Amino acid sequence: MSAAPQDSPAEPNLESLVAAAFGPAESEGELSQILPVLVRDVSDIDWRLNQVLGSTYAQLTEAARYACSTGGKRVRPLLMSAAFRALGAESTAPIHSLAAAFQLIHTATLVHDDVIDHAETRRGRPSMPRAFGLPLAIVSGDYLFVRAFELAAEYSKSVILRSGEACADLVEGEVLQEASRFDLSSGREHYFRIVERKTAAIIAAGLANVGEIAEATGPVITGLHTYGTAIGIAFQIKDDLLDVFGDPDLLGKPLFTDFREGNSTLVSLEAYRRLDPKHQAEFEQLFQLRRKRTKHLLRLRDLTAMTDTETVVSDEASAWVDRGVRALAPIPDGPYRRLLERLAHGVAERRF
Amino acid sequence: MSAAPQDSPAEPNLESLVAAAFGPAESEGELSQILPVLVRDVSDIDWRLNQVLGSTYAQLTEAARYACSTGGKRVRPLLMSAAFRALGAESTAPIHSLAAAFQLIHTATLVHDDVIDHAETRRGRPSMPRAFGLPLAIVSGDYLFVRAFELAAEYSKSVILRSGEACADLVEGEVLQEASRFDLSSGREHYFRIVERKTAAIIAAGLANVGEIAEATGPVITGLHTYGTAIGIAFQIKDDLLDVFGDPDLLGKPLFTDFREGNSTLVSLEAYRRLDPKHQAEFEQLFQLRRKRTKHLLRLRDLTAMTDTETVVSDEASAWVDRGVRALAPIPDGPYRRLLERLAHGVAERRF
Repeated sequence: MSAAPQDSPAEPNLESLVAAAFGPAESEGELSQILPVLVRDVSDIDWRLNQVLGSTYAQLTEAARYACSTGGKRVRPLLMSAAFRALGAESTAPIHSLAAAFQLIHTATLVHDDVIDHAETRRGRPSMPRAFGLPLAIVSGDYLFVRAFELAAEYSKSVILRSGEACADLVEGEVLQEASRFDLSSGREHYFRIVERKTAAIIAAGLANVGEIAEATGPVITGLHTYGTAIGIAFQIKDDLLDVFGDPDLLGKPLFTDFREGNSTLVSLEAYRRLDPKHQAEFEQLFQLRRKRTKHLLRLRDLTAMTDTETVVSDEASAWVDRGVRALAPIPDGPYRRLLERLAHGVAERRF
Repeated sequence: MSAAPQDSPAEPNLESLVAAAFGPAESEGELSQILPVLVRDVSDIDWRLNQVLGSTYAQLTEAARYACSTGGKRVRPLLMSAAFRALGAESTAPIHSLAAAFQLIHTATLVHDDVIDHAETRRGRPSMPRAFGLPLAIVSGDYLFVRAFELAAEYSKSVILRSGEACADLVEGEVLQEASRFDLSSGREHYFRIVERKTAAIIAAGLANVGEIAEATGPVITGLHTYGTAIGIAFQIKDDLLDVFGDPDLLGKPLFTDFREGNSTLVSLEAYRRLDPKHQAEFEQLFQLRRKRTKHLLRLRDLTAMTDTETVVSDEASAWVDRGVRALAPIPDGPYRRLLERLAHGVAERRF
């Protein structure tokens, strides 16, 4: 069992994400003004998150903190902080608990995902079930959910309900995904139904909640919601691409999880329909294998690479980014809105 | 996969529990007045519960409703309804969502328990992981949690936080139990720490919340909380006894789950310390087997029966019942308070 790290691993990831969004040349201008502010915001949210994870039982606290420290790039807290500041807030204190809650919900689902997918690693470290065993992984996921809802109790009924609905969407997305495993006939529409629920709903709800807490107008809240949905979809499409064409060292996890688990991602669906009948049959046969060997996974990748899937799917992610950026129109122009625009592009251009 | 039943299975269980509490002779008097009222209350709560389980995805709705229909004896909604009426309420409508939320939380933990314990059956039917597979069982448990918190959003921050804290206790209880599996040296104090958190906290919090919603005085809320804790503990002790000495047909599940999974219950702890050194060594050796065969389980039962454990542990459950009944002193006397008293006795005397 690995010990929980003493310091938060969020900042380097965050800085590289933001840097990727801006590019090195620009990072000396506007970014150098607002990046320290946002890094501090995300760190404050991490602090709030760590605070509520404390349990009487060292083992549970350790497991919960371990899960959160492998829980991702802090994209959600960053987006929520930037959105709140874009709406004119001088401090993000009013949304710290909310952002921590959303980060906990996200992490809880990753933990349960790793149980369901038999994942060995997450962010370059042993996954929760691997590090703490299946029972503690399941129970720690529940614990993260519970602490998230305690944090949400600080807010209005409408914010709590929007959060709850997004969680229900998330779970529905999981179920839809389970229902279409190993099934390449499920189609694009089904894929987008999954992604909207599993990935986009929680980002959209988090941003809409930020708008509501900032007492923004209806069009602003709707704009933030649409932006969140669009970049959530772009984010997931990019994730699907990286799982096949990414660099496992940068990703911190092995490639081909979706091929292995039979998740019908946009990459698989597009590759499948672009292949000639002979290769299509081979792709389908390999994709449906319940236990795939490395040579099967590499062949699925090679078959995909025989088509223009990577370009087509990348373009599709970019189109969602553009939709997200357009949805920001009702938000006042300024450095934080520009950051939201650039983060959207960063999501589609990232390599990790 | 089994289909979800069309009608609620709660009422027969409920009636037999209440009947067991009152005894046949008395059921013609006071009980005949209030039983139909409470059956209606519990049925209203079930209706509220079913209402929120509706998902766009038939499979998730089906799984969630299946889990709830195997989710137990509706003891919690019954206790909460009786307590609310004991405080003078003419209608239980104000607590329907709360009671439904607590029933959902209880059910969610049973579903995840069944995943962790590899349980085959629950209430005489295939367990959730058995009926729907491990992924859907995990995700459905999450879904039940999420819907529970949506229901709780109707109430004050203090009610939500008390509910959340009880859920955290519940999870901590699970972790404590995991930590002491196959360990007979963990002791009575550890056992009571587990039971207070895993079973009693949620009953106590549900009843205290009912007191708060009824705008009861501090001593009444404290009394309800203490009553809930005490009968929660009595309930769990009785569960431990039934797992060794009960009738599997009445219970709807096989015996010896705790022996099999190495849960150090009060029964195991007391049997172990009451045996002579030779049998003690045999008990410990068998208890620690990670895979036990039927002959091992039966031998553990027989070794337990060589001591006066069943009597001693039953007496201990009764002592908790008495403590619970005494804690009801601040509640106004009347038929519903008398029902709460008798339900406490029913908990310790039940055979299912």
